[in-house]
Amino acid sequence: MAKGRLRVFKIGGKVVEDEQQLSTFLQSFAQLKENKILVHGGGKWVSEMSERLGIEVKIIEGRRITDAETLEVVKMMLAGVANKNVVSKLQRYDCNAIGMTGADGNTIKAEKRPLKNGIDYGFVGDVKTVNHLVIEKLISAGLVPVFAPMTHDGEGNLFNTNADTIASSIAVGMAKEFDVVLNYCFELNGVLEDIDDPASVIPVINHANYTQLKADGIINAGMIPKIDNAFDALNAGVMAVRIMNSKHIVELAEGKSQLGTLILK
Amino acid sequence: MAKGRLRVFKIGGKVVEDEQQLSTFLQSFAQLKENKILVHGGGKWVSEMSERLGIEVKIIEGRRITDAETLEVVKMMLAGVANKNVVSKLQRYDCNAIGMTGADGNTIKAEKRPLKNGIDYGFVGDVKTVNHLVIEKLISAGLVPVFAPMTHDGEGNLFNTNADTIASSIAVGMAKEFDVVLNYCFELNGVLEDIDDPASVIPVINHANYTQLKADGIINAGMIPKIDNAFDALNAGVMAVRIMNSKHIVELAEGKSQLGTLILK
Repeated sequence: MAKGRLRVFKIGGKVVEDEQQLSTFLQSFAQLKENKILVHGGGKWVSEMSERLGIEVKIIEGRRITDAETLEVVKMMLAGVANKNVVSKLQRYDCNAIGMTGADGNTIKAEKRPLKNGIDYGFVGDVKTVNHLVIEKLISAGLVPVFAPMTHDGEGNLFNTNADTIASSIAVGMAKEFDVVLNYCFELNGVLEDIDDPASVIPVINHANYTQLKADGIINAGMIPKIDNAFDALNAGVMAVRIMNSKHIVELAEGKSQLGTLILK
Repeated sequence: MAKGRLRVFKIGGKVVEDEQQLSTFLQSFAQLKENKILVHGGGKWVSEMSERLGIEVKIIEGRRITDAETLEVVKMMLAGVANKNVVSKLQRYDCNAIGMTGADGNTIKAEKRPLKNGIDYGFVGDVKTVNHLVIEKLISAGLVPVFAPMTHDGEGNLFNTNADTIASSIAVGMAKEFDVVLNYCFELNGVLEDIDDPASVIPVINHANYTQLKADGIINAGMIPKIDNAFDALNAGVMAVRIMNSKHIVELAEGKSQLGTLILK
């Protein structure tokens, strides 16, 4: 039985790491009336601190090789600095945020990623289950969960996990209880027809036009995995996925609904 | 109306920073049947990481001068590494821990410590209020709150706060709802008559014998502030305070009640 609307937002490191952008985003996020969850990244901080500590940064196809030393830096910068900065700022805007990783409340269980093409990603977790009941209890208690992109295996191991994946996993898990809209916030205005024209936002993508847009070569190759993941979330029960500019949350908070690219089944 | 027993435990950095000691402690902690809350320190890690990053460590009378750079290290090592290590290990022992700072759920509000004897402690917070209602909701949801020693002011600022103080503030706050026992765990067997004799534990201290013990010079000067704080907590509604060896939690979990020094009104 659905308990109303829930919005899951994902913001990347570019928003988290810029004090002014973060404050602007969080001020509007705090004003949203619906139930909500925020998932944040912060990868640049992990890379910068790794370098400061003399730990080699290895990223393969956008995924960070997370050895034991790098995992400590992920705890420091994502579960520590980034998460607590977001939480304390949200409190300032009267939003009762509670910072989490997947280990907290046993909310997101994962397993260590198996070798892929001979590459050992180290302490990187692939999400197995989301404990929607615990997250629902936090929301019922008037709290707004804020997730750093870490998971655990229930055996005492923490993992680094991609924030986009955490957001879609939470959205799918919570769809058992809520009508979930998943909002991916990034630095573009949405999925663009022309990458050089910020006004060329494709307002709606669905199965019908997606095939054509791909066939015509209109959708940028980099966007295809994001959109494929969005369709996976829709097929697993999420109501809608929006890809939008994090700056436009101001308009979203003001009630504007035509923003970015809406992906529908 | 009291909702039963609640135990608040405080463990210091020496337990948190030693993998083996921490696992032993948490395994027994996980087995305790009563409602419980854990508060942890981890100051040595803050000092070590500060030194690694070239940040000067300044501690005056046991209190860390927390400038802006040091505050980042506190977030990294206490809210990040220490807190998430404790939480993920407790999950391993089937204890549904949720890691917190005072900013999370707006649970502990503080104000910046005013200058004392001309010393600016920087981002150090003196506790003002504990939101026992939010903490009670977490406990009712079957969660075990694990606090890193940080607070916030509700204006977006995080503070470093002494873990002993956090533990006693939470104990006092929760005494509105529960019969609270506050357990300070450290490396001695309790308050000792003879610091060189680990068996010389004073089993009970109350107002009546405390004056005499102090007059006779039996209680070590270093213990006096701890015991004074314990009496403050008792006067504010906490049922009992126990000062015990963290190793003896094994016996506590087995139901032994005569452990360490019990401080009663």
